[in-house]
Amino acid sequence: MAREITKRSEDYAQWYIDVVLKSDMADYTPVRGCMVIKPNGYGIWENIQAKLDRMFKETGHVNAYFPLFIPESFLTKEAEHVEGFAPECAVVTHAGGKELEERLVVRPTSETIIWDKYRDWISSYRDLPILLNQWANVCRWEMRTRLFLRTTEFLWQEGHTAHASHEEAEEEAYRMIHVYRDFAEKYMAMPVITGRKTEQEKFAGALHTYCIEAMMQDGKALQSGTSHHLGQNFAKAFDVKFQNRDKELEYVHATSWGVSTRLIGGMVMCHSDDNGLVIPPELAPLPVVIVPIWRGDDEQDRVLGRARELTQDWDPLFYKIDDREQYKPGFKFNHWEVRGVPIRVEIGPRDCDNNQVIAVRRDTGEKATLSMDGLEEQIRKLLNEMQQGMFDAAKKRMDDRTYTVDDYADYQQRIEDGGFFRIHWCGSGDCERKMQEDTRSTIRCIPFDAEPEAGQCLICGGPSERRVVAAQGY
Amino acid sequence: MAREITKRSEDYAQWYIDVVLKSDMADYTPVRGCMVIKPNGYGIWENIQAKLDRMFKETGHVNAYFPLFIPESFLTKEAEHVEGFAPECAVVTHAGGKELEERLVVRPTSETIIWDKYRDWISSYRDLPILLNQWANVCRWEMRTRLFLRTTEFLWQEGHTAHASHEEAEEEAYRMIHVYRDFAEKYMAMPVITGRKTEQEKFAGALHTYCIEAMMQDGKALQSGTSHHLGQNFAKAFDVKFQNRDKELEYVHATSWGVSTRLIGGMVMCHSDDNGLVIPPELAPLPVVIVPIWRGDDEQDRVLGRARELTQDWDPLFYKIDDREQYKPGFKFNHWEVRGVPIRVEIGPRDCDNNQVIAVRRDTGEKATLSMDGLEEQIRKLLNEMQQGMFDAAKKRMDDRTYTVDDYADYQQRIEDGGFFRIHWCGSGDCERKMQEDTRSTIRCIPFDAEPEAGQCLICGGPSERRVVAAQGY
Repeated sequence: MAREITKRSEDYAQWYIDVVLKSDMADYTPVRGCMVIKPNGYGIWENIQAKLDRMFKETGHVNAYFPLFIPESFLTKEAEHVEGFAPECAVVTHAGGKELEERLVVRPTSETIIWDKYRDWISSYRDLPILLNQWANVCRWEMRTRLFLRTTEFLWQEGHTAHASHEEAEEEAYRMIHVYRDFAEKYMAMPVITGRKTEQEKFAGALHTYCIEAMMQDGKALQSGTSHHLGQNFAKAFDVKFQNRDKELEYVHATSWGVSTRLIGGMVMCHSDDNGLVIPPELAPLPVVIVPIWRGDDEQDRVLGRARELTQDWDPLFYKIDDREQYKPGFKFNHWEVRGVPIRVEIGPRDCDNNQVIAVRRDTGEKATLSMDGLEEQIRKLLNEMQQGMFDAAKKRMDDRTYTVDDYADYQQRIEDGGFFRIHWCGSGDCERKMQEDTRSTIRCIPFDAEPEAGQCLICGGPSERRVVAAQGY
Repeated sequence: MAREITKRSEDYAQWYIDVVLKSDMADYTPVRGCMVIKPNGYGIWENIQAKLDRMFKETGHVNAYFPLFIPESFLTKEAEHVEGFAPECAVVTHAGGKELEERLVVRPTSETIIWDKYRDWISSYRDLPILLNQWANVCRWEMRTRLFLRTTEFLWQEGHTAHASHEEAEEEAYRMIHVYRDFAEKYMAMPVITGRKTEQEKFAGALHTYCIEAMMQDGKALQSGTSHHLGQNFAKAFDVKFQNRDKELEYVHATSWGVSTRLIGGMVMCHSDDNGLVIPPELAPLPVVIVPIWRGDDEQDRVLGRARELTQDWDPLFYKIDDREQYKPGFKFNHWEVRGVPIRVEIGPRDCDNNQVIAVRRDTGEKATLSMDGLEEQIRKLLNEMQQGMFDAAKKRMDDRTYTVDDYADYQQRIEDGGFFRIHWCGSGDCERKMQEDTRSTIRCIPFDAEPEAGQCLICGGPSERRVVAAQGY
């Protein structure tokens, strides 16, 4: 099974597809660019949802649900927004056997339909803030699709908040990108850099966009979450005003922020290896698999009996005993390894004699001999160590492959090997576009923690005040 | 606030709409037949999801996600299915700025797209059973819509299982309708009758359909959940065969089962009153609201301080202290009453002196004086009593309004006042249609617990072997 996966060193893109398919996370469908998320992938999404949802609620947000369909005319109300999204839309023209009077767009994002309702809901500063989030499917008709990373339909959450002041909206946009950072680092074991997108890369309709960017194992960047300060753009487009404390009418200030099933693609490319999927324990649908090893019926009864006895008080969603009789232990080891189960526990007759088991970590392959006494606690400790170990390894990789470069020829050569490049940039869109044409790399973000540092733009030599991070990206 | 709600006795249909809107559960949108589910409604759906999802997992199911779009040709592969659903479909004809080669239907239900994949996934009895569930939005272009009860887009779950034998599929379909019954009775406090749909009322493409039917306060029936034994119909339509243990090729056996946001409409019509929404505690987004009562700053500090002290160790999602200064207690009582918060706790200065609070149950209006010592535990006990009390009241209402009738003229008169009618029926579709034309009532189900009883069909006088349940329905 594992040998069917292409090696990363041979073909990284093919390795990724192999891992996703062989690990039973997803499959293709006959619908262009749409995938099936299979249980081993959807279980990860359920864990992502559960953790993020709690973080959203702890920061005062509540969930709601708006329609899938958006009247086509809504999209045109915000000029930049329509330019950004209209070319990607799927359009419903017929329904109930008739042609529709107004065509309906399948939501590519929900700003317009939501701000149309906010007009009805907001009249006074007392109605603010509104702190809503939505878990939903969205559709963007992409030309080139790739499982999880870019699909025509995908699952996501989109926060949409309304505020009485610029400062409050700014605080919210900034708060939420840090919620995403904490989520990525704590639960996905995926270190990120946090900062602001350039004008060219910001969301269509935003004042500015904050992002988290993660480094994949090939050194490329993956934009993993964004938070937009929308200013009063959507309030103006949909005429949403409120009476402030001084009884004056003002336009409402907005943010929106989202992460999607793309995160799962990021998780794969950040952590997995040539043997298949590696899942951070915090997101694993199945944290532990127990493989009993026996020859003959007597041993089978004894080993299986002991495994069941050991786990009788465990949460049934925490572990599985692979008691299938038609497969040998080696086959089972591979089966669960490819699928990314964090800890494999092996129990054989000799282990029973010695009151011990062998526990194998999926990320490092390290084997530990654990006493059967207090086994669950020892395994949970191992899972925590693995979670931290995965983060540390990914962090070291990102740090090792983050370079400071000041010569454009040097940059053009080295960018092909991947990595994050701290470069000086004058702020001009022209330089940004030239770099993109020359190197297929982009400015990923202007990091929040960039220190003031005078320098010269890598591309044009013009004055620059701080370094930005550039990389090739997904 | 409460007085803006139409009385049930005056106009039951308008009362329902008023409750849904005033309780902040949902709102209309400019998209025909589509609603916004607002946080007070979506919070109930989140609780429904959490409880049901656990019940599905405890019965061995896992979640997956299939595409929103279905190639139009797929729908036509099962003859009854296309007849049932094609007229209701929304159709995407353009995407990415171009006309599509094959039109895509927005899923009205997912049997076809799922069985198309099952063909790839199933080849041997070892691949069976497949026990998948999907949480998703679906779209059926309805002519007449009503908030929650019938909307063009709605949220639901759909289970889709594949089995090696007729008996196993039958067991599954029967098991799941009982999961729905248990859910409705235990968490929604909504008693149901459980049974089989007639041929005319079954799902388009099923061998037979099981259902749960609940009685609303106007005596009408609401179909609240269905479970279908699909036989080999979809396996034949999509050519899904497996090799059985005897190495013979056989078509796979199927079930599907679903409940939707319609349940929330049922909950409203089963439990709410002229003052607004009443939510069973098990589904309440906010179980407890605390309204402090004060005059002047000193009292405010004292009462609010005490309220905060009392609740400092409580789960923040369990309660809210309504400390708004711009509103009087009477306004707050109404505010939370309309929104259906199960328990209101009042704390005034005299209560502080006496180390007590007043707790008011939303369903009965009963007031109880509770000691401040061990308050959380007493409130949780009250919530449990309320949950049981709501079920008992609804059960008594259903029993009181379930009639045994043997005279068609009598039936035609009494059906207009609502209620469930135990009638004899010969089994003919003609009689069923005649009854429907004469009385706008239908056979809701053939109950599982119907005792054999010889009788004469209420409509034609022909022989009947057991009573069925008829009612007007939603």
